[in-house]
Amino acid sequence: MRAYDIIYKKREGQKLSKEELEFLVNGYVDSKIPDYQIAAWAMAVYFQGMDAQETANLTMLMAESGDMIDLSPISGIKVDKHSTGGVGDTTTLILAPLVASAGIPVAKMSGRGLGHTGGTIDKLESIPSFNTSLSRDKFFDNVNQHGVAVVGQTGNLTPADKKLYALRDVTATVESIPLIASSIMSKKLAGGADAIVLDVKTGNGAFMKDFENAKKLAEAMVAIGKEVGRDTAAYITDMNQPLGQAVGNALEVKEAIRTLKGKGPADLTELCVELGAGMLQLAGKVSSLDQGKELLRTKLKNGEALAKFGELITAQGGSAKVIKDLSLLPTAENKVEVKAEKSGYVSAIKALDVGLAAMILGAGRENKDSKIDLAVGLELKQKIADSVEKGDTLAVLHYNDSANLEEAKAKLLAAFTITKEKKNKNKLLYEIIK
Amino acid sequence: MRAYDIIYKKREGQKLSKEELEFLVNGYVDSKIPDYQIAAWAMAVYFQGMDAQETANLTMLMAESGDMIDLSPISGIKVDKHSTGGVGDTTTLILAPLVASAGIPVAKMSGRGLGHTGGTIDKLESIPSFNTSLSRDKFFDNVNQHGVAVVGQTGNLTPADKKLYALRDVTATVESIPLIASSIMSKKLAGGADAIVLDVKTGNGAFMKDFENAKKLAEAMVAIGKEVGRDTAAYITDMNQPLGQAVGNALEVKEAIRTLKGKGPADLTELCVELGAGMLQLAGKVSSLDQGKELLRTKLKNGEALAKFGELITAQGGSAKVIKDLSLLPTAENKVEVKAEKSGYVSAIKALDVGLAAMILGAGRENKDSKIDLAVGLELKQKIADSVEKGDTLAVLHYNDSANLEEAKAKLLAAFTITKEKKNKNKLLYEIIK
Repeated sequence: MRAYDIIYKKREGQKLSKEELEFLVNGYVDSKIPDYQIAAWAMAVYFQGMDAQETANLTMLMAESGDMIDLSPISGIKVDKHSTGGVGDTTTLILAPLVASAGIPVAKMSGRGLGHTGGTIDKLESIPSFNTSLSRDKFFDNVNQHGVAVVGQTGNLTPADKKLYALRDVTATVESIPLIASSIMSKKLAGGADAIVLDVKTGNGAFMKDFENAKKLAEAMVAIGKEVGRDTAAYITDMNQPLGQAVGNALEVKEAIRTLKGKGPADLTELCVELGAGMLQLAGKVSSLDQGKELLRTKLKNGEALAKFGELITAQGGSAKVIKDLSLLPTAENKVEVKAEKSGYVSAIKALDVGLAAMILGAGRENKDSKIDLAVGLELKQKIADSVEKGDTLAVLHYNDSANLEEAKAKLLAAFTITKEKKNKNKLLYEIIK
Repeated sequence: MRAYDIIYKKREGQKLSKEELEFLVNGYVDSKIPDYQIAAWAMAVYFQGMDAQETANLTMLMAESGDMIDLSPISGIKVDKHSTGGVGDTTTLILAPLVASAGIPVAKMSGRGLGHTGGTIDKLESIPSFNTSLSRDKFFDNVNQHGVAVVGQTGNLTPADKKLYALRDVTATVESIPLIASSIMSKKLAGGADAIVLDVKTGNGAFMKDFENAKKLAEAMVAIGKEVGRDTAAYITDMNQPLGQAVGNALEVKEAIRTLKGKGPADLTELCVELGAGMLQLAGKVSSLDQGKELLRTKLKNGEALAKFGELITAQGGSAKVIKDLSLLPTAENKVEVKAEKSGYVSAIKALDVGLAAMILGAGRENKDSKIDLAVGLELKQKIADSVEKGDTLAVLHYNDSANLEEAKAKLLAAFTITKEKKNKNKLLYEIIK
């Protein structure tokens, strides 16, 4: 078998066999096949695509290129959830205790990640003494005993995906639906999930700007799930404005706690209930999504979801007092309000620019060596369709260092479009693919 | 400027500016841009193409990436000729003295090349003592004095093309019309030609199997010539069977001499007269192709073309006696006839397989370190449309080593298709693009 022939075949729009993909993936990981051949192949895939079977084979091969986590020491059906990423996406912090409070085991491994804010692990580390580095055994024990644990990723997961993604990133071959789908799903499979709920964001703050491509990605990932025998449901949700109000690490933890108390932003609460119901259904806990949503709303109302978050924090060595006293969480020294310069209705919010404003304040990493300030970020006080008067507060910026404050303010202000006509809110959930 | 953005732009089907191409080509030659980015770009070009201006810019940049030969010490309009390659293509050996005998300077630099037989330089070296390594000054002097010189390529010509071609060869990105066109034309421009006649072969023995692609390539190269101010004419000619009868180095020299004596195969003679007339026209020697053909036919008849070949040989230190006594050229020890196994008409000859049979006998290089046997090869005794009886000789194989003889015989025999119905000959010259 020769890499040349495999590139040629894909260039001609032909289907690659499992053996051919195995030759490519393993050869690449072992550095027997050079970067330039894989780059040419990836560009050919960009133009010619891959069918469901090819995509599933690639996914499985990338999953098996490194450690495969075995979650069988945890009893029950383990449902993982993944978001394709957006601004102010606090869902994991809420979903983990919420779903666990309904009796479904949540064994969550999360990352730090680059972006406007840190990842779930960074956010959790704003809780004093919270330990995100449990041993494998302790992780399993915690899930079995408390129904939930959230830890940082360890081990050598999907090295093939890591190497291929890094190459795609510099060869303009990221934007290929089958390659994106297999990258995401390979990580979920290596992580040991029995079933997977995917939150595929679409809109100006999402990786997939338009609904059509988001839907194609959702369908591709669900098809992979089918091929490899993992129940998968993909939720296509709106990211034309940040989710909830908070963008920033400790600020999002505070928002998560408020949401678990039943006092969170409507959109964030609704999305968590939707995605959580999907997880309950895949786990066989409920027979309908409506039943799942009802159950989760009850858990939010009766305090059990919040109590489960406290239990999670305590079990991982953190101080559960933060639940009652949000001021125990990192708090920025200064706040400043950004005010509307004219009256009207908020008709658009550039979500990426809101994220960038938070990053400028120090909430996110520009590169993997950047240091995060867990306390800083911003709270949106107006969302799409809200009416504002000139001088009303659009957002509150939380900052410690005023060096880049003006830049952040300008970025935030420019992210808002205020018009005379009222624009209706976007739907939050566009479609469920399964 | 970033390579990523240039790849992305081409992937999206946009036109690259001269500056962007310059950044890529120079960055690649200087190893500042890695192979994998150029591979992804080449695959994007395969799918999205390049327009005439982009292709011309790329050609010029590759030509200028190394030495640019200045032929101005030679007086007159220097017309170069290039063939895209076929089996049994002896034209350069004939054209050089033929055109020179008509008073047009021929300053030819040729290669050795990989293939079924050696290149023009290998073929010439089968003439005892013939020197293909003249100094630049001696080369110019010979052309000025004798009207013709043929030497091997020296110097650092088109390093960008060499590096890019080697990469395309292993990334399945060779078959791109603008990339093929710019590769060929860059070498002609670096070689200093004022005008160029291109022999674009089409058919089963050619790089371009079908007429449509051959025409596209011809048009792309003529368009480059226009953009860079070099008169260019492309002849689309048939390669559905080997040209002439001989395939092999010394065998082709013998055939060239016979042709210069006016006793060569009709197809080879006709093609040389056609291409030669094109060269005379571009050089301003004749006002019409018919006039050019008439002049060249006269030179073949009156012995001046043959005399010029003798002059060329003598001027480069070779023994011109070979012209009178072909047995002074390398001759294989053994010959064997391959006979028809049934009666009928030759309706097809797989030219590549005929070439392969010659290569199996040792006439060509499999890789750049292979040693060529200048004496071996084959002579076709039947061509398309010929009637054959069972037992008639289809071809004579000339060999020194019998190790692979049976394989060569089988390959040759299988290359012939003999049917009851007579198939008409293909036209030799399909179209002239200029």
